[in-house]
Amino acid sequence: MPNWLLPENIADVLPSEARKIEELRRVLLDNFRCYGYELVMPPLLEYIESLLTGAGQDMDLRTFKLVDQISGRTMGVRADMTTQVARIDAHLLNRKSVTRLCYAGSVLHTRPSGLHATREPLQIGGEIYGHAGLEADAEIQELVLASLALANISEVRLDLCHVGVLRALLNSDPSAKAHEAQLFALLESKDLPALKVLTKDFQPEIRQALLDLPNLYGDKGIIQKAREILPQLDGIAIALDELSYLVDLAGTAKVTVDLADLRGYHYHSGVMFNAFVPGLPNAVARGGRYDHVGEAFGRARPATGFSLDLRELARLMPLAERKDAILAPWSQDPALRKKINELRLAGEVVIQNLPGHENEQDEFECTRAVVFDGSQWILKTVG
Amino acid sequence: MPNWLLPENIADVLPSEARKIEELRRVLLDNFRCYGYELVMPPLLEYIESLLTGAGQDMDLRTFKLVDQISGRTMGVRADMTTQVARIDAHLLNRKSVTRLCYAGSVLHTRPSGLHATREPLQIGGEIYGHAGLEADAEIQELVLASLALANISEVRLDLCHVGVLRALLNSDPSAKAHEAQLFALLESKDLPALKVLTKDFQPEIRQALLDLPNLYGDKGIIQKAREILPQLDGIAIALDELSYLVDLAGTAKVTVDLADLRGYHYHSGVMFNAFVPGLPNAVARGGRYDHVGEAFGRARPATGFSLDLRELARLMPLAERKDAILAPWSQDPALRKKINELRLAGEVVIQNLPGHENEQDEFECTRAVVFDGSQWILKTVG
Repeated sequence: MPNWLLPENIADVLPSEARKIEELRRVLLDNFRCYGYELVMPPLLEYIESLLTGAGQDMDLRTFKLVDQISGRTMGVRADMTTQVARIDAHLLNRKSVTRLCYAGSVLHTRPSGLHATREPLQIGGEIYGHAGLEADAEIQELVLASLALANISEVRLDLCHVGVLRALLNSDPSAKAHEAQLFALLESKDLPALKVLTKDFQPEIRQALLDLPNLYGDKGIIQKAREILPQLDGIAIALDELSYLVDLAGTAKVTVDLADLRGYHYHSGVMFNAFVPGLPNAVARGGRYDHVGEAFGRARPATGFSLDLRELARLMPLAERKDAILAPWSQDPALRKKINELRLAGEVVIQNLPGHENEQDEFECTRAVVFDGSQWILKTVG
Repeated sequence: MPNWLLPENIADVLPSEARKIEELRRVLLDNFRCYGYELVMPPLLEYIESLLTGAGQDMDLRTFKLVDQISGRTMGVRADMTTQVARIDAHLLNRKSVTRLCYAGSVLHTRPSGLHATREPLQIGGEIYGHAGLEADAEIQELVLASLALANISEVRLDLCHVGVLRALLNSDPSAKAHEAQLFALLESKDLPALKVLTKDFQPEIRQALLDLPNLYGDKGIIQKAREILPQLDGIAIALDELSYLVDLAGTAKVTVDLADLRGYHYHSGVMFNAFVPGLPNAVARGGRYDHVGEAFGRARPATGFSLDLRELARLMPLAERKDAILAPWSQDPALRKKINELRLAGEVVIQNLPGHENEQDEFECTRAVVFDGSQWILKTVG
């Protein structure tokens, strides 16, 4: 094995791509700030108990485990930052008021989520704590769309779902509730034949609703259709009202509603969404409401937020232009040093040619040079 | 154990500190760019063989090990990024020309390097490949001092040393060479009595030089003193000339020379330096020449560079000012949305009050508000 070989689904980011990612990172963080989101930086490592609080088995399997040489306890390398940020809100900041937090950092996964997926996403996101109303979900939805617009992505599909529909169905039929895990598996794979067998002893109205769910997918009209064919349960009515409110605020994004989408069901507590863009089969941004996560850290706080992988988003953007730079000779002449400093302070890239390498610059486009005209150092256009 | 407890020497970075770190990160990366350094992002994880190439046992012990579930091989979480960047230069970019690279990212250490040291430094640095001359070392030295100046640190002490002095001594006496490891330990602890015992059968001239080294520490004059009392070996003369060249280019920084400073001796191949600032007992920035590291990746390239911990540097800076923001009511009125968007585009922080939380803002200093004057939304100064 050559020792420059990297593990599968792990990669270096080279200069042209790194520059795109860095620029996008700054633009998104600056925009979060304009909305009042404060930056926090949770650690890469935590004890496994705090890192996996409220997270499902899937997150557990995705998390690399390490032994802490100091305490002997098991630590995990974060596979997701949302729980960490909820911990910071609940325990460290401990404010009573609405708190908006944002973050950007690498996470690691033991296995890639797909064939070409990276095991080291660069997660960036924003979360609001302390407001249970839908206005917080609306602000997060706006922030997702604004983030994608800042990445110059105009064609966005927002896929909305709501855990309230399935919860209401399960809570009104004990035999459905008893088969929760199996129901998830069958609904996720949209396996109608097996679903028919499993639900045959359920209450007929609940059974029919569970069989209808996989087909309740489509544009805004699906909400009206669901009102007509699903049972008249309070939980379902509230969920459909919430979806309707958010669909109306989605602006120019194309919105689809999927009542059988269960990703994150155990973690979330209200509206959930996935944003899709052309060129990526998987959701580029995900989020939703997760009101109960803070409880584990001693303080229940309403919470909603979203995150996306900055590397994946940057890959959709065109390559940055070749870099314009100025060449300067190597010399300790104070007048030249002064000239170079002035140019750099003005934001110019000035590359000093190291002796013997005068004709080598191939990465930067040097269209100008600092030259001595006999009396002073001047900037000159070069071939 | 409460589940919000973090492992020892691991910490969250809260908003005011995170903002300082983020601002400093941008300023330093922008400055690297103005010098022609291209940003790269090596991965957090690599196979242990590539990660520890050229690194000593100390780095091995500091590196967290993980098993790759895909390949079954051992991976490490990077404890330092320098080797990774050398690998990118040697193998991936594979340019013949001088290449300047920079990077910023978290690294993890199994154990803290000191009582209060973090186990998760945020390493930022720059490296030049392809130029063996001292001009490259001089540019790196300039970049270290410029970086510290950008962090508003005016009082800097630059501590220079050179592996060439000890190498020349060891190479001229086989019995000294045979006791290399013990000599290091005694020189590092400046244990003169034990050094006298160990060296008693060495060549008298080499023995005396080894006993003199621990005292060859001080200002620029030490170089002249070393020329007088150390043996007339080519390696020593070259090393002292190089140190002299760099001391003269250090500008306003206070420079000290320490000929017995051996940190990084196995890794480095020429001049090494440590930068110290008031308030920090350990070096804030470290660097030096390491010409042989690329060999392991198939291509020997002259190399020199430096890195520092962004978190530690940011901690020395004054707290950022309290954040000025504008309050706006919650409403979907298009005229209000337009006004808010305009303000945000102009770089203002505009916080929409979520219903029921109108009197809660305590983190942002809201001195202005968007209000409706009966005909339009205007910006107004508030108590």
